[in-house]
Amino acid sequence: MKKQLLYTLLLSAATSLSAFAQTDQQMLERIKEEGLNKSEVMNTAFYLTDVSGPRLANSPGLKRAQNWAVNQLKTWGMVNATREPWGKFGKGWEVQKNYAAITAPYYHAIIAIPKAWTPGTNGPIKGDVVVIKADSVSDLDKYKGTLKGKIVMTDVKGNLEDTFKPDATRLTDSALTAMANSTGAPAAQQRRPQATGRGSLAALLALRQAISKFYVDEGVALVLSQARGTDGTVFTTNGASFADTAHAVVPELETSGEDYQRILRLSKAGIKVEMEADIKTEFLTNDLQGYDVVGEIPGTDKKLKDQLVIIGGHLDSWHAATGATDNAAGSAVMLETMRILKRVGFKPRRTIRIVLWSSEEQGLYGSKYYVLNHFGDPKTMVLKPEQAKVSAYYNLDNGTGKIRGVYLQGNQAVGPIFKQWLAPFNDMGASTVTINNTGGTDHLSFDAVGIPGFQFIQDSMDYGTRTHHSNQDTYDKLSEADLKQAATITAWFVYNTSQRDEMMPRKELPAPVKN
Amino acid sequence: MKKQLLYTLLLSAATSLSAFAQTDQQMLERIKEEGLNKSEVMNTAFYLTDVSGPRLANSPGLKRAQNWAVNQLKTWGMVNATREPWGKFGKGWEVQKNYAAITAPYYHAIIAIPKAWTPGTNGPIKGDVVVIKADSVSDLDKYKGTLKGKIVMTDVKGNLEDTFKPDATRLTDSALTAMANSTGAPAAQQRRPQATGRGSLAALLALRQAISKFYVDEGVALVLSQARGTDGTVFTTNGASFADTAHAVVPELETSGEDYQRILRLSKAGIKVEMEADIKTEFLTNDLQGYDVVGEIPGTDKKLKDQLVIIGGHLDSWHAATGATDNAAGSAVMLETMRILKRVGFKPRRTIRIVLWSSEEQGLYGSKYYVLNHFGDPKTMVLKPEQAKVSAYYNLDNGTGKIRGVYLQGNQAVGPIFKQWLAPFNDMGASTVTINNTGGTDHLSFDAVGIPGFQFIQDSMDYGTRTHHSNQDTYDKLSEADLKQAATITAWFVYNTSQRDEMMPRKELPAPVKN
Repeated sequence: MKKQLLYTLLLSAATSLSAFAQTDQQMLERIKEEGLNKSEVMNTAFYLTDVSGPRLANSPGLKRAQNWAVNQLKTWGMVNATREPWGKFGKGWEVQKNYAAITAPYYHAIIAIPKAWTPGTNGPIKGDVVVIKADSVSDLDKYKGTLKGKIVMTDVKGNLEDTFKPDATRLTDSALTAMANSTGAPAAQQRRPQATGRGSLAALLALRQAISKFYVDEGVALVLSQARGTDGTVFTTNGASFADTAHAVVPELETSGEDYQRILRLSKAGIKVEMEADIKTEFLTNDLQGYDVVGEIPGTDKKLKDQLVIIGGHLDSWHAATGATDNAAGSAVMLETMRILKRVGFKPRRTIRIVLWSSEEQGLYGSKYYVLNHFGDPKTMVLKPEQAKVSAYYNLDNGTGKIRGVYLQGNQAVGPIFKQWLAPFNDMGASTVTINNTGGTDHLSFDAVGIPGFQFIQDSMDYGTRTHHSNQDTYDKLSEADLKQAATITAWFVYNTSQRDEMMPRKELPAPVKN
Repeated sequence: MKKQLLYTLLLSAATSLSAFAQTDQQMLERIKEEGLNKSEVMNTAFYLTDVSGPRLANSPGLKRAQNWAVNQLKTWGMVNATREPWGKFGKGWEVQKNYAAITAPYYHAIIAIPKAWTPGTNGPIKGDVVVIKADSVSDLDKYKGTLKGKIVMTDVKGNLEDTFKPDATRLTDSALTAMANSTGAPAAQQRRPQATGRGSLAALLALRQAISKFYVDEGVALVLSQARGTDGTVFTTNGASFADTAHAVVPELETSGEDYQRILRLSKAGIKVEMEADIKTEFLTNDLQGYDVVGEIPGTDKKLKDQLVIIGGHLDSWHAATGATDNAAGSAVMLETMRILKRVGFKPRRTIRIVLWSSEEQGLYGSKYYVLNHFGDPKTMVLKPEQAKVSAYYNLDNGTGKIRGVYLQGNQAVGPIFKQWLAPFNDMGASTVTINNTGGTDHLSFDAVGIPGFQFIQDSMDYGTRTHHSNQDTYDKLSEADLKQAATITAWFVYNTSQRDEMMPRKELPAPVKN
């Protein structure tokens, strides 16, 4: 009997295992078919980019994209789809007119982008360019009373040398091997550039603030600052605070390197440069709340359905383009992941939730506050009960490049699990599991309260050279094949995370963050 | 006695040879010192680009650059410096305002350049975008009466894929070796693309003309056409004839690929795109003559001073930038060559003449007519006496890259001479002599009437990918080290050509060109 029982048990286990494996295999095939051959990821990306426009935090463009995403999640059959407020962010802002040109010594329209949250010119302006040299606050004295209506700039280097390196690259086998072999020891700390020591940084910031106030007081018409980038590519940033209490600044144009240096060379040679500009920006103060987009495929296993697998990426972008690779790409892939799982008829054991973050670009606010609202406070490490119920969070935010593997974020125990899940995609270039951390995006908010949070390893493509925060981050820069591969792999990861008997292994809880 | 005489003669020859070689060596050192260590080539380039502005044929910018060059040649001590008219070209043209933006579904200022010789919008306009599909003239019927005040475009592919190749390259050793080993046999003819067969090309041109006239008749406000280029780089062309008799066309903007494709994708998806634009261009009809800049260092050898060594490059450019690599680079190098030779106190045997061409971009007009006026007619091969007096013409017009050697243009006999002249510069990368022809620039005008005309081999840098005819052809793209090297080598070539006892060997006279 005993022997017979053992045999029966073994047989039963084998049958169950085989049945399960068969289900997995079938689901894998269906996910691949849906993700690779029936993809809608490019259509989703089109609506998030071209149709919605720039998606700066709290801008009308972001709201359009959020509303579209909520509606699309509902259309695909997700539940609880909504824009969920996470707390106060600040002012919305958008560009409504952007024109600037040299008018003497000859006419030339420049490529330049208003810095985020800077004001407009209040109609068309014309003025002479003045090159300001101020290494200290007292250096400003000599300009007192001379800058009214002027267009000011400073003398900075161009760094516009020809590049003999390709704009776009993929991770090489040796780079991936190095990541796989990493022990997670932190890389040798880079030497800080001299000027950014703590003391001099504070002095530099104080000087900048003094200059900014001086420009306002003196009635400067427009500030030109040199943008990073070459060949018409302009990387953008913010030029003022988004807080509703932010102090006034002068309109500021982030100017293409080529145009900036031309104006600077002429001015330094004593040749008068006159410019005209017409910049209109609008501040939106009706609703200072930030919102994340949420939607779910509910779990179906009685014991596990309260547990969560969360996926996400930030939907907000900078304002000079439509944030295609940063991060409509990740958002579209995660939306496509939800669509794939729904379309293949998957009934997950755990609940699958997508959250598309906002205000990531200003400091991961959307995810930080979401985590604070739902899971716990990394400062105190006071945790909410829901913290214990999230199996894993998966993030995508490194551009349009396909998935080459995953960062374990120091969580050694998940290594063998991820390796197994990646196996069916090794022939599509995704095989690397590295113990390394990667920073700069929203999985950190989960990691900070002890929830396993992961960002995938992606090919960089032309993220650093052309698209990341630039005026060239457009739909055209999206690689369809790469996004399809990524959505298929994330769907498979989510499927497995939701079906696994156990939750994903966790690292030790981090210590509270000291203030 | 006989023996003694022979000895004396030999001694005398050796002394003379040695003295001459010593003079050569001294001059080489002085040219190198002046060209490499005391160069003014970048300052010259600054005045031709930043200070003069765009130098489209017969534009005010070109005239500024020509006047500056004439004056500078005089300042350096050249004689006969002047703007020499070569015949009727056509209208001058320049941009005086250039602004265009999407205003719905959201605001976005586009990167776009008015096509040369197209009119402006007569003040600010606003209109909806219409995508026109017309494969034949009769296809236009369906748009009759619907296009007034509209902004029209056609459905074309983007071709904006990521590039995994570097923008800038230098010639590899193997490429140079292949050129050196070439026998001059023409490369296998490339298959013509289907659409450009003679019949269909004529049909295509007729269709384009019909469409252009239809747009005028219907009152289209603005045409968008897609520019070649990516990432903010826009390559430009002309959109209408420069002839004073040219028929009317509609304003046309060569639009960056990213902006064009965004507008096109939205329109094709049925999402209404509204635009605003304000484009002002001016036609200059006061003086339809074309001019070349000329200047000389007179020859000092009684027998040879009527003979000429001519150097040049075209000074005109396209209008979207300041034509730095095409061809302020070549012009600055040739001006610098004159400066170096004058500054080192060189008294040439033959007269050295610089000519900076105009209207090269429209068909080598400046050099063709100069040759016609001075040397002969390639159509009839009726030659003027001066044709026999030009030893050689040297041209530079392949961008900012340094000199890697020289094209013999099929003139085998000059090969050993050039090899010897290049020897002191082999360690600076210039050593290749190829029997090959190269086309597309002004040495062809000389070659066409049997005057030895040569273009140097140059590193391509980012000429094809970023600068050649683009809005990014600015001073920043100039490589100082490369231009210094080039000017030093051309000065040495000119020195040797002027001092050589014989004129440079010539090829057989070409046959008259059939009409």
